[in-house]
Amino acid sequence: MVVGEVAEGVDLLVVGAGPGGYTAALRAAALGRSVLLVDRLGDAGIGGVCLQVGCIPSKALIEVAEVAHRSAGFADAGLTVGEVSVDLARFQEWKAVKVGGLTGGVAELLRRAGVEVAAGEFRFTRPGSGVLQSADDRPPRHLEYTDVVLATGSRPVELPGLPRDGERVLSSTDALALSSLPASIAVVGGGYIGLELGTAFAKLGATVTLVEATDRLLPGVDAALLRPVRQRLRAVGVEVLLGHRVEGLADGVLTATGDSGEVRVAAEKVIVAIGRRPNTDGLGLARIGITPDERGLIPVGPDRMAAPHVAAIGDITAGPALAHKATAEGEVAAEALCGRPAAFDPAAIPAVVFSDPEIAVAGYSADEARALGMDVAVARLPLSASGRAATMGAVEGFTQLVVDRSVDAVVGVHIVGPHASELIAEGVLAIEMAASPVDLLASIHPHPTLSEMTSDVARVLLHQPAGATVPASAPAAS
Amino acid sequence: MVVGEVAEGVDLLVVGAGPGGYTAALRAAALGRSVLLVDRLGDAGIGGVCLQVGCIPSKALIEVAEVAHRSAGFADAGLTVGEVSVDLARFQEWKAVKVGGLTGGVAELLRRAGVEVAAGEFRFTRPGSGVLQSADDRPPRHLEYTDVVLATGSRPVELPGLPRDGERVLSSTDALALSSLPASIAVVGGGYIGLELGTAFAKLGATVTLVEATDRLLPGVDAALLRPVRQRLRAVGVEVLLGHRVEGLADGVLTATGDSGEVRVAAEKVIVAIGRRPNTDGLGLARIGITPDERGLIPVGPDRMAAPHVAAIGDITAGPALAHKATAEGEVAAEALCGRPAAFDPAAIPAVVFSDPEIAVAGYSADEARALGMDVAVARLPLSASGRAATMGAVEGFTQLVVDRSVDAVVGVHIVGPHASELIAEGVLAIEMAASPVDLLASIHPHPTLSEMTSDVARVLLHQPAGATVPASAPAAS
Repeated sequence: MVVGEVAEGVDLLVVGAGPGGYTAALRAAALGRSVLLVDRLGDAGIGGVCLQVGCIPSKALIEVAEVAHRSAGFADAGLTVGEVSVDLARFQEWKAVKVGGLTGGVAELLRRAGVEVAAGEFRFTRPGSGVLQSADDRPPRHLEYTDVVLATGSRPVELPGLPRDGERVLSSTDALALSSLPASIAVVGGGYIGLELGTAFAKLGATVTLVEATDRLLPGVDAALLRPVRQRLRAVGVEVLLGHRVEGLADGVLTATGDSGEVRVAAEKVIVAIGRRPNTDGLGLARIGITPDERGLIPVGPDRMAAPHVAAIGDITAGPALAHKATAEGEVAAEALCGRPAAFDPAAIPAVVFSDPEIAVAGYSADEARALGMDVAVARLPLSASGRAATMGAVEGFTQLVVDRSVDAVVGVHIVGPHASELIAEGVLAIEMAASPVDLLASIHPHPTLSEMTSDVARVLLHQPAGATVPASAPAAS
Repeated sequence: MVVGEVAEGVDLLVVGAGPGGYTAALRAAALGRSVLLVDRLGDAGIGGVCLQVGCIPSKALIEVAEVAHRSAGFADAGLTVGEVSVDLARFQEWKAVKVGGLTGGVAELLRRAGVEVAAGEFRFTRPGSGVLQSADDRPPRHLEYTDVVLATGSRPVELPGLPRDGERVLSSTDALALSSLPASIAVVGGGYIGLELGTAFAKLGATVTLVEATDRLLPGVDAALLRPVRQRLRAVGVEVLLGHRVEGLADGVLTATGDSGEVRVAAEKVIVAIGRRPNTDGLGLARIGITPDERGLIPVGPDRMAAPHVAAIGDITAGPALAHKATAEGEVAAEALCGRPAAFDPAAIPAVVFSDPEIAVAGYSADEARALGMDVAVARLPLSASGRAATMGAVEGFTQLVVDRSVDAVVGVHIVGPHASELIAEGVLAIEMAASPVDLLASIHPHPTLSEMTSDVARVLLHQPAGATVPASAPAAS
């Protein structure tokens, strides 16, 4: 700090206004702290990547694509619709209104809680101090904080040799902001973002090719869960190239090479979705004695503390880069910095892919549970056993329970099928409460719903030999 | 029994092949009993009203209607669809295939379990004996049973003065079998069946008028839950006439009178859905010493026993006439008749209305909980706080928790909004497991989903003064 500059005292500083950051700010304010929430984009950054350009916009696109696709997919059931078309410029206006309503809601909560929001990039100068530099010409603000929560999130990784230009080569953020539908799209990266975007654009009418360097989609997700998704990708016309590396882009053609040689892919646009990188490089962490690991992640304890008076949450710490993880950690960080006993130690962080059909997992897979030495029983019930699924025209999918018999408790729930993202909530609660299969069966599930699959698979587990997988396509109750 | 006739011995007899009956049959067979399952319609009755002509067919119709309606409802989001039309004859073929697949699945389970299925109407002759009379000319079968489960279900009540003719005046069963869309429909009865059918036919393009004799729709459902549904009824063009009694039908015009005089309603078809009556009158119950109550219901204990060796389940017993109640009771009846300790004593039987938006309730309302002397805290969060709802274009609805503070446990969950029928499963489990608001908040809900409303409303309850209802339309986490 230059002599003569006046430092402002800040009671509790939160850096980053995404779901983790604003949750921490609100919780700390509710606990009596005076909070300053800073974000690179200021008010415009409230909600972060997730709300502004990530989960919410992508779900809006997926929803519109699904409505368009489904309307044409019920011809067998007697439904005829005329030509379906989408005006993405109009979609963007609609989306902006929705996002604006949500961010406005959060801004209002922050205002009522007395949280000050400021624009600028924060970097540490020494323990307890830092500088907030805004993008405009205003002089930097020198801040002296008592406590700080770091919640700066992550940004897309670019493809070496095919840098983002925002015109031909797009990040997922660019893709979600398109105002016209490209005729052909190559999506590079078979993770959940690429899968979600590729499926949505294909349903809207684009020719989509998914290019993945490894030999499978959705690394880390049980292969069985992927099978129904692969079938639907074929049905909606998404071509999948596994084991192919991108070589270059010229004249609307993407070149990729695999074991069997070079492939040329029509690509008016290329969407690169090969991963995200934590935003920890510009924070000046070395000045407060914090050393990120080789992936750029900040090591923290269960109370989210990275150093005295410094907590870190969300994508800049280990674990899945998911908004709901950041939110839960934000609550813990605020509590911990306010001197309350708090720890982030969930039995299950659910992971959801908004593919077609949706995938949702919570807790351990059977293999993981066995590796931990549990006495594992597994049961799986196909979606064809569900009366509700039949009425929706859905057939591909299943619900699977993993139980640790030594304690008679559910330790894993895996669902692939319609609304899996919603259905997993019951599974997470079951794991958190250490529910037994009898508990799930005794909990009466309304009929006819997809949620019955959860009690029906518990019935299979209870009334059949342990470890059996039901072979029938018949409903246990319907 | 006439001298010379030979009675067949039956180990365990189940009368009625609906969801309750076939579940009892399967469970008893799994417990080692030799089971005869009789149904008026024999194999064609497997699945009962629910699967054959009730819940499953109605959900199929509702689904197609919703897809048709939604495709036209996303114009603001840039989606243009051509003219939408439905061919109900083709829908009936599609539905028949779906229903056939499900009933075939149950038939296969019964076959594998060694359950014999026979056609005929059963009536008792004396304790331990009865006659099975089939519709054809075959002689009756005289049965001597060790144990019996009665699961004969219910049938629609007719409107005095406007008897069902299957042509102009339809039961809900007839309505679900229509092979062409009527131009105008009057639905008599504002219960859940009338509401569901009226909404679906309106979405498919019919002019629908809902005529209800009392002053409100959905008796027994909290008025607050009804408000979003009333808004949607207006939006889809269903006219609602409360406090109107039907006088007659002539030349496609239904006449009804209310306080302000006579109203004439265009009604190419009239659907009568004013309630259901238990099928207990033809069973010869007096001969085994069972006297149904004034509503025709058979009194039973928690183990479902109505008399020695006679259990009764489902619509012919007290409680909501719901398939999932019958299923759960069927399991209990089978266990009890097999000498195992069993009782039907759920903390919550969920009730679901497939209206638009859906309504789902489990456990106690705030008023019910207070009447029981509980120390009640209530919180409600509007759907406008949900990011996922915004992406679906859904705005009207809420999630409400009722908590008994003396034991810090959730005792009621009430949801109105998209997919409420699925979301309530978590609520039922929470009530069954006596989860606290902290448990719901600690259970991480995936983002962005509607299920987050459950943890968000728990947060409201925990972090705001008890009994407060959140006023904001802002997301607690988004």
